[in-house]
Formats: sequence, C-alpha cells, structure tokens
Amino acid sequence: MKAAIVTVGDEILIGQIVDTNSAFIAKSLDRIGIEVYEMLSISDDRQHILDTMASLQDKADVVIITGGLGPTKDDVTKKTFCDYFDDELVRNLELEKHVVELIEKAMKRTASQMNKDQALVPSRATILHNAVGTAPGMWMEKGNTVFMSLPGVPYEMKHIVEHEIIPKLVEKYERPYILHKTIMTYGQGESLVAERIENWEDSLPEFIRLAYLPSPGRVRLRLSARGTNEAVLKNTIESETEKLKGLIGDIIVGYDEGETMEVMLGRLLTKKNMTLAAAESCTGGQIAQMLTSVPGSSAYFKGGVVTYATQSKIDVLGVDKTLIGENSVVSAAVAEAMALRAKAIFGADFAVATTGNAGPLKGDADAEVGTVFVAYATPNGVFSERLDLGQPREKVIDRAANKALEKIYQEILKN
Amino acid sequence: MKAAIVTVGDEILIGQIVDTNSAFIAKSLDRIGIEVYEMLSISDDRQHILDTMASLQDKADVVIITGGLGPTKDDVTKKTFCDYFDDELVRNLELEKHVVELIEKAMKRTASQMNKDQALVPSRATILHNAVGTAPGMWMEKGNTVFMSLPGVPYEMKHIVEHEIIPKLVEKYERPYILHKTIMTYGQGESLVAERIENWEDSLPEFIRLAYLPSPGRVRLRLSARGTNEAVLKNTIESETEKLKGLIGDIIVGYDEGETMEVMLGRLLTKKNMTLAAAESCTGGQIAQMLTSVPGSSAYFKGGVVTYATQSKIDVLGVDKTLIGENSVVSAAVAEAMALRAKAIFGADFAVATTGNAGPLKGDADAEVGTVFVAYATPNGVFSERLDLGQPREKVIDRAANKALEKIYQEILKN
Repeated sequence: MKAAIVTVGDEILIGQIVDTNSAFIAKSLDRIGIEVYEMLSISDDRQHILDTMASLQDKADVVIITGGLGPTKDDVTKKTFCDYFDDELVRNLELEKHVVELIEKAMKRTASQMNKDQALVPSRATILHNAVGTAPGMWMEKGNTVFMSLPGVPYEMKHIVEHEIIPKLVEKYERPYILHKTIMTYGQGESLVAERIENWEDSLPEFIRLAYLPSPGRVRLRLSARGTNEAVLKNTIESETEKLKGLIGDIIVGYDEGETMEVMLGRLLTKKNMTLAAAESCTGGQIAQMLTSVPGSSAYFKGGVVTYATQSKIDVLGVDKTLIGENSVVSAAVAEAMALRAKAIFGADFAVATTGNAGPLKGDADAEVGTVFVAYATPNGVFSERLDLGQPREKVIDRAANKALEKIYQEILKN
Repeated sequence: MKAAIVTVGDEILIGQIVDTNSAFIAKSLDRIGIEVYEMLSISDDRQHILDTMASLQDKADVVIITGGLGPTKDDVTKKTFCDYFDDELVRNLELEKHVVELIEKAMKRTASQMNKDQALVPSRATILHNAVGTAPGMWMEKGNTVFMSLPGVPYEMKHIVEHEIIPKLVEKYERPYILHKTIMTYGQGESLVAERIENWEDSLPEFIRLAYLPSPGRVRLRLSARGTNEAVLKNTIESETEKLKGLIGDIIVGYDEGETMEVMLGRLLTKKNMTLAAAESCTGGQIAQMLTSVPGSSAYFKGGVVTYATQSKIDVLGVDKTLIGENSVVSAAVAEAMALRAKAIFGADFAVATTGNAGPLKGDADAEVGTVFVAYATPNGVFSERLDLGQPREKVIDRAANKALEKIYQEILKN
C-alpha cells in the first residue's frame, strides 16, 4: 500500500505559500497504515498534472491531489480528470443544491452561475462530499490506482480527508500496522547521542527504523515499526525503548509523538499544582505563545508581559530605572529583575525572563547582536545565564525561548 | 531555466514535520528569475534519491536537495552523490578544521570522530560553505544539470542558499525576468471577485498570468509576468494594476509580494511615527509574537501583556474587578477595558486586546468555545467586535490574531 500526495498550485512553486496540506494528509494516512512514498508540488498546468498522474499510475495505489479546484479560471484539475479518464463534465443536481444552499447560508446572497458550475463533475466520479465548502472532492479509479482530487483550502481539505477519504480507504484496503514512538532528548548534540546508542541501533530488528530529528538544543529519536502483528510491534517498541532508557536515560525528557517541551511543562506544573509567568523582551511573546498553544494552559500559565522597549520595563514591569542605567538593559541584573517582577505581579511560583538583542540591528542597548540573558525566578531565588546565539534573528528568538522553557522545566522538577 | 527542489526525509512523509525549506528556496530562486517547476519530498532511501536524481537529469537545470546530511546513520545523500556521480568520499582538511573549530566554540567540547567525518565529501564536489553548521553543502554537475545538496536544518539551509547558491547561480546563468505583484482584497469571496474582473482578466496580455489565492475573509490576486524586457514587464504590471483598481478599488487593501499584515503595519506605524501595544488573553502572545517577528519592530511596538488568567487582568492590567464580575471575563466591556489599559500603561497611540475562549475546554468564563472579543483602542476612543470562530483551537487563535492586526491597520490608516 503506497500513496502519493500531489499539490497543485503556482503559489507553492514560487514560495508564496508553504504547503501544509500534504503533512496533514500524510499524518492521516500514516495513522491507518498507508505509507506515503512521495509528495509532489506541481504547477496549475493541465499537461503537468496529466504527466504527473501518468507517472504515478500503478506506481502508487492511492494518489491524493489537492488544489486546482474552485470557481475561478485557473482551476484545472477537474478538466484534467476528464482528459485522463476520458470522461466529460455533467451537472450533478444534488451538488448544485448543496452549493446554492451553502452560498445563501454563509454569504447571504444568491449563488452566481460560476458558483453553480462547481456542480459540474466528471460523469463517472464518485463524489467526496464537502460539507464545509462549494468545491466537491472526487474519487476516480484506473488500473490499480485510485486518484482523488480535493480543494486546496485547508479546512475543506481536512474535512473531506477525515469524513470521506479515510473511512473509504479503511473499507477498501487491508493495511499493515504502522507504529511510531518518539523519544525526546535534551542537551546533547546529534552526533554525541548517536555515538552513545550506536550498538543498540545496530542490533534493532529489521522491521524497526530509527530516525534522528535534531533541532536547536535537542534531538528527537523516532522509532517506526511496520508489520502485520500489532502486538508484536507494540511490545518490541516498548522493549527497545526500555533498552534506550538504560543507555541515555539521563538526557531523555519525554516520550511520544507530538510531545513538546511546552506540553511537558504543562503536565509537570499541573501535577505539582504550580504556576508560571513570563517577562519577555527579545523573545517578543514567543514564550507566552508556546505556553498558551497547549489546551488547558490557563490552569498553570498566569500570563506574561512583552516589554520590548526599555521604558515599558520600567513602567509596566516596575524594573528599577537606576538598575537599568547601571547595568545596561541587556544584562543579567535586568533579566533577573524582570523575572522577579513577573513572578510578583502575576503571583506565580516560577517566572522566566529574557532580555537581549535578536538583531539584525542593535536596539536600545549596546549588546552584541545575538546576546541574550535568560533569567529564572523560583521559590528559592533567582539566577540567570548568558546565551550567545549569533544570527539570524529567528534562530536567536527560537533558541532563547526553547532554552528558557527547558531550563525552567529542570528547575520545576527540583522543587 | 527550470529548477526542481527535493526534500529528503521520512519525517516529512509521515507528516511529522511540515516542509518549509522548499518555500524558502523557491522564493529565493524566483527572485533571480529561475522558475521552480516541481517540488518533491522523498524518503531517506538511497535508491529513491538515485531514481529521483535520474528522473530530473536534463529535465531541470538546477536541482536543489535538502536533508539527508548530518552526522548520524540515516544520512544518505552524500553517499548517494558518490553513486550518482561515480565518485568517492575524500577527507577535506579545510572542512575538518571548520567542523572542529565550530564544535569547540559552540558546544564547548572537542569534536568526535563522527563530527570530523562530516568533512568527508565527494572528491569532485564544489563545497558550499556552511558557516553556521557542520554539514557542508555540495555542488556537482552532470550533463546539463547542477545538483546541489544542503543540510535540512532551516537556518543552515538558508545561510547556504543566500551566501553560496544564489551568488553562484547569478554568475553562471542568464535568466529571464520574473515579476510578481500581489493585490490584496478583503471582504468578498473568490467567485464574486472573479465575476467583477472577468473581462479584464480575459484581455490580459499573454506574458501575464493571474492567480487567485483565497483564504478566509480575503482573496489575493497575483499577477506574474515573465520575459526578457524588465521595463515592459514593469510597465504592463503597473498599468494592469491601475485598471484593476478602477474595477475593484473598493476592496483592495494593499499590494506587493510577501507583504504580511505585520510588515504592512510596521511600515504604516513607522511612516506615521505612531506606536502600538497589545493585551492578549485567548491569543496568548500570538499578536506580540507576530509583531516582533519583524526586524526593527521595537521602534513602534511598545509591548504587550498576556493576561491569561482573570486575576492577572485585574492585577497586571488594572482592569476593574467589578466590570469583570458584571460582564463576564469574555465580553466586549472587558476587551475594551483591556485595550484602554494596554494603551495607557505602555503609552502607545493604539492598542488591541483579545479575550475569548479558544477551546477545546471552557476556561474562566462561560463563553462558547470559539467566541472571541477583539477590542481596538485608538486616539479617538475604543470599540470592539465579537468573533465566532468555532474550532479547532489553533484556528481560533490564528484568526483572532489576524483579525486584530487587520482591523487595527485600517484604524491606523484613518488617523
């Protein structure tokens, strides 16, 4: 069982839009044991779509195409399906009714001819109902391959995948089991981790694959198992994870797919019934944004301030003006004062604070671009560390925010 | 001049990671007039990489491959280059020196053998220097095609594209001009816009292409011109834009490629010498984070508070406790009070505030999941609007933050 995902749209090829649809579809297919072996992004061009369909014919069992559907003139997928399957467009009255009703309900106007023409579909296509939009999905088969076409608007695409495609695929195909487990490590680089687990990795059973997913400050290790016996896969993944724990237990901070530092922090704070606040300068709200991306975070994240300008550190946070004058705004002393003030005004058990220069230009202070002080206020006091993160700006912000969460996690663990 | 972009990595094919590298590379190539005709994501598998390279041979002039480089065992691109170009790995001493120095400086430890082996490269490869990481980029040619391999870590990839690849491509190839102009419209759907400009669209010159990029609440229209005479392209795009303005001037809110709302806001505030602050509840720092993602934003973004818990709205922002009691924390009155308080404590000309329930669980208030109040404080007063954004959580946060920036932009325009 192999699948390919094709995204149609010039806006992707010129880099105007990042394709997030393919990742969603891939995850959905992976969950039901269908392996995606290739993703493609191609232009809104009939011949290019035709060539791509032909190249995937019988090479993939399932081909899911998004984009190139919709009411305007650059929409070509539907016509290309007619070419490829030697079919013609016919008006589907049930579909037209859906389009007319949706336009009237959502837009509060009557449907135009262009809207109504979205009910024109290849005569032999099985319609994939789009309850949340006017462009229908289509399912057509040729040889051993099912080709599907979906609109590119993410929430319409998601709706059709979840409610139409996945149930249909589950019914049609027998699939193997695919299991993943991700082990998150912090504080050591990819190569160091790799050396520590080299022998273990070499002795992994053939049906298990290991991947390294490094990002600044951490490495995730992903184990993937594929086979027909779910219990065997599960047990083997568990026993291999146990062995790994024996080898690098000191740097393992969590397990499971999608387990980010902010999720782990949330779980830890909830368990300890403790709270956190943040005062951010150069990270500009990134820490607050990461923390609040977790559902239920209002229970333990008291809040944050983004005091970007020096004056707001004084006015809003209440940092001592003299302290800033004596130490510079980018300093350990100011970071620590910010953390203590955030802890106090939010009434939190812990607080993190950042002050630094993310670049590319120098800000209020004379600090080198890339210099960040991160401070941690805990029930036992306050301390800070200096990070030299270089450039570019986004890396500085990302690393400082990640570092802050990581370190405060360790502090909370101690308390 | 055609290019293809290939991303190597199983983490993309299972949907664990969204590929943002390809969009960055595409945008960089587009800017120098190189058309990307296809993007592919494939597995970490030697044969798959080989097949893909062979399929692009002489079909693309430039093939840029990211991922599959790095110190661990699942890195295969380098070895595959040796296979494809019938070459062998040799140790590059200059590279090894760079790796050793970088590890010592950044990690404060000595380089391991695995680190040092990153200096093993195909003997005939031209090295693309990676100043910010240990995995080198490579450039190798066969027939009419240049193949390049880059590490998948985004900031390393970006550095090499900007500092190595683009200058080399500009020197090597004569390229046509590609010009884009994006016209941003708000408030009417794709089909309505399409009907209003149908005649104009039909009479566009052949070297200009129009694309519709719809997203919730807005449609961007992208004009792309391609040719050898830059002046002709520029003039035609300008005159066609003028015609468009005559047709749908009422819904056009801005122009230009890559222009996000936060960038436009920054430019507008700078021009007017005015400032902005934010008080966020359900958007949890997203607004601050968007604003501060723009370099130089410290000049006009005074700062923000993330008052997630009801108590912090009182303690930190100074919202009246009785007001919250009488209106509920998710209400127009509280949103407006938050905006006014943020404007006051940060001493800003404008402020936005959000309070709502992003879900999936109900928070401090009884408001329906998906209900958000956004308030706008301006030099002339304060007002708010209620949004019903449904679910999921991320959509609620995203839409509320975008809506806030969009609306305050319009308010600043008026002042």
